[in-house]
Amino acid sequence: MHLKPSPLAPANFPDMPPIDGVQMWTAETGAKYQDRPDVLLVKLANEARVAGVFTKSTAPGAPVEWSKDCLARGANGGLLVNAGNANVFTGQFGRDGVRDMAALAAAKLGRAAQDIYVASTGVIGEPLTLKPIEDGVKGIELLDENCSWEDAARAISTTDTYPKGATKSCGIDGVPVNICGIAKGSGMIAPDMATMLSFIFTDANISRDVLQALLTNLCETSFNAITVDSDTSTSDTVLLAATARAAHLEIDDINDPQLESFKVALAAVMTDLSHQVVKDGEGATKFIEINVTSAESTTAAKAIAMSIANSPLVKTAIAGEDANWGRIVMAVGKSGERAERDQLSIYFGAHLVAKDGYRASGYDEDILSAYMQGSKLKITVDVAIGTGNFTVWTCDLTHGYIDINADYRS
Amino acid sequence: MHLKPSPLAPANFPDMPPIDGVQMWTAETGAKYQDRPDVLLVKLANEARVAGVFTKSTAPGAPVEWSKDCLARGANGGLLVNAGNANVFTGQFGRDGVRDMAALAAAKLGRAAQDIYVASTGVIGEPLTLKPIEDGVKGIELLDENCSWEDAARAISTTDTYPKGATKSCGIDGVPVNICGIAKGSGMIAPDMATMLSFIFTDANISRDVLQALLTNLCETSFNAITVDSDTSTSDTVLLAATARAAHLEIDDINDPQLESFKVALAAVMTDLSHQVVKDGEGATKFIEINVTSAESTTAAKAIAMSIANSPLVKTAIAGEDANWGRIVMAVGKSGERAERDQLSIYFGAHLVAKDGYRASGYDEDILSAYMQGSKLKITVDVAIGTGNFTVWTCDLTHGYIDINADYRS
Repeated sequence: MHLKPSPLAPANFPDMPPIDGVQMWTAETGAKYQDRPDVLLVKLANEARVAGVFTKSTAPGAPVEWSKDCLARGANGGLLVNAGNANVFTGQFGRDGVRDMAALAAAKLGRAAQDIYVASTGVIGEPLTLKPIEDGVKGIELLDENCSWEDAARAISTTDTYPKGATKSCGIDGVPVNICGIAKGSGMIAPDMATMLSFIFTDANISRDVLQALLTNLCETSFNAITVDSDTSTSDTVLLAATARAAHLEIDDINDPQLESFKVALAAVMTDLSHQVVKDGEGATKFIEINVTSAESTTAAKAIAMSIANSPLVKTAIAGEDANWGRIVMAVGKSGERAERDQLSIYFGAHLVAKDGYRASGYDEDILSAYMQGSKLKITVDVAIGTGNFTVWTCDLTHGYIDINADYRS
Repeated sequence: MHLKPSPLAPANFPDMPPIDGVQMWTAETGAKYQDRPDVLLVKLANEARVAGVFTKSTAPGAPVEWSKDCLARGANGGLLVNAGNANVFTGQFGRDGVRDMAALAAAKLGRAAQDIYVASTGVIGEPLTLKPIEDGVKGIELLDENCSWEDAARAISTTDTYPKGATKSCGIDGVPVNICGIAKGSGMIAPDMATMLSFIFTDANISRDVLQALLTNLCETSFNAITVDSDTSTSDTVLLAATARAAHLEIDDINDPQLESFKVALAAVMTDLSHQVVKDGEGATKFIEINVTSAESTTAAKAIAMSIANSPLVKTAIAGEDANWGRIVMAVGKSGERAERDQLSIYFGAHLVAKDGYRASGYDEDILSAYMQGSKLKITVDVAIGTGNFTVWTCDLTHGYIDINADYRS
């Protein structure tokens, strides 16, 4: 299937600097895709620390189980990713396949198989054919120049219509530090997970515990705050590797004030990548920010926001550029969270459309219709009963989603 | 918008007998629809008892609030329904509108306004214009012949592509009894509710408490076991009225063995109506039964079944006639219920496709593709860890759903 680039795609892939202590290569196996890389091999410096967040699916893929074990034992050797086959629900054969993939990468990089993270993305339930991946990895020349971040992002994509990368620099204790991340994902995107695949690298010198705490916390307001279709993948993996090559003292306390600018920069990279995933949502033509304010709690605000973001009726109305705020009321009502119909205020952009249990007095259909024609929309629901706020991001539901998903396997 | 009849529509509206003690009339107000009735007025015998189940939305419409109060005080005078405007999120104006509607019907029928149930369906958030309904009700001639069940079903529909009715007869204590029901609904259909509007009538002589218990129980496996788009309406209402005109002694014990054949008949009517709602699901081309067996509990089985039934990726794959069981695995995994990936068995119809964490050995893509071309499909997931079973019904997600919902308000 040929996929046109999303109309919401950024103009360019960003300029991203190399990260000291991270080496990357790609291979083209031709197993499923033609004329594009589909294998990514990453080598990490010996001093590297890795943090990870994985899908909460109770039926995860074999690579997720393997990489969770890697994380538990502090593995830091490298990463092998293949695109085209997710190696999920493939039984003992699949588990053997992951071990073989790790062994392949380990042999190439001169590390132990137990030290190699593995991630796979693509079709579920099809047996993984190892041979093309094996040939691809064996064909990599370690002395060759590293691949670009853009190539790396391409190598891990499936139905993505553009490669996703983000970068920020900051300082720790006066020493410059870089953060570079890539991501893939456009369907099977839902909350309660670390959305599809994302790999983030930094040369900062940060302890494993602090790195893991940062990643876990920031996932909540980035990768776990987006939804394309409410479907949670079996393969979602976010890894954050820090090579400790930057010349500052190790940070081992999450409250260390020296970490502030790094936190802000990492949050920016993760938010940027997660928004790029939504903007590449299958069939998306609108990028939608949903703010829920003054709910009973943060949890309630998130539940209401996700109920709106996942409603097919809300998403199709937005696709039709229809400011159908009645469907917002419906979605608030079905969330099950406490809300008083007659206290809700609903805004499209800056336009108040509903208040006090009734259409707002200044409501103007023409102004709203003009606003709905934009490609970046903001919906705000003020619940007016508490102090819980949450923001999620989603996209509209269009014919393009049906086109892509009614015929993905063939 | 002109809607073609669903390809899953039944060949004919069923032959349905009158119910002694139930009189019905319709009116055409022309307020939103042309050349079809959009108001239904029902008069119940003085001896009638009424049971009801309503939406669990926390932002219900004014008519739902009114009718819940009616139910609490044992109202039994009659029912007024309008289609085209749901009178939801319309503030005090909306509450006044419901009271006015009840008063109109009461004046016409010679009963108190407090005795009249009201239901409204259609657009949310638009102020209700009373005048056309008032003119319609006033124009009804009580001496005219009663409208047909088919006309009554047409008068309560919105985006429905066919009128929905079902009937069964049975015996209580040797006395013949009839049950006739009508329903409307095709979008904003989801669990945890009594789906859209359905009104069921019988001449049986059954106490209010028993009637309510029967309705509540049977809703669980009929109206609360279907989903079109996971969106819960603000207006869902199911009423069951028994006129007590049949010449048997009153049944006031739900365990009375005389009630057995009535229970079976009522279940059949409710199941039939709920299936008709799914078969008229917006854009539907496939009617899908999802059976989850041997889950940890009945609740877990329902959660897994609904997770499958509400997954956009499962529903689009079925629209594409793709036996993509990998997406079934995904949906089981995201349900959050206990399931062992390697113990799941997945069937499409009678064809085992996945077992023991792997594609089934007899898997034959040609046979499955042929099966998927049918318009009535069955998916079974055996979780193999407990004794909980549940069945839900849904439809596929097609371009038709987008067509209908991206431009409903205009």
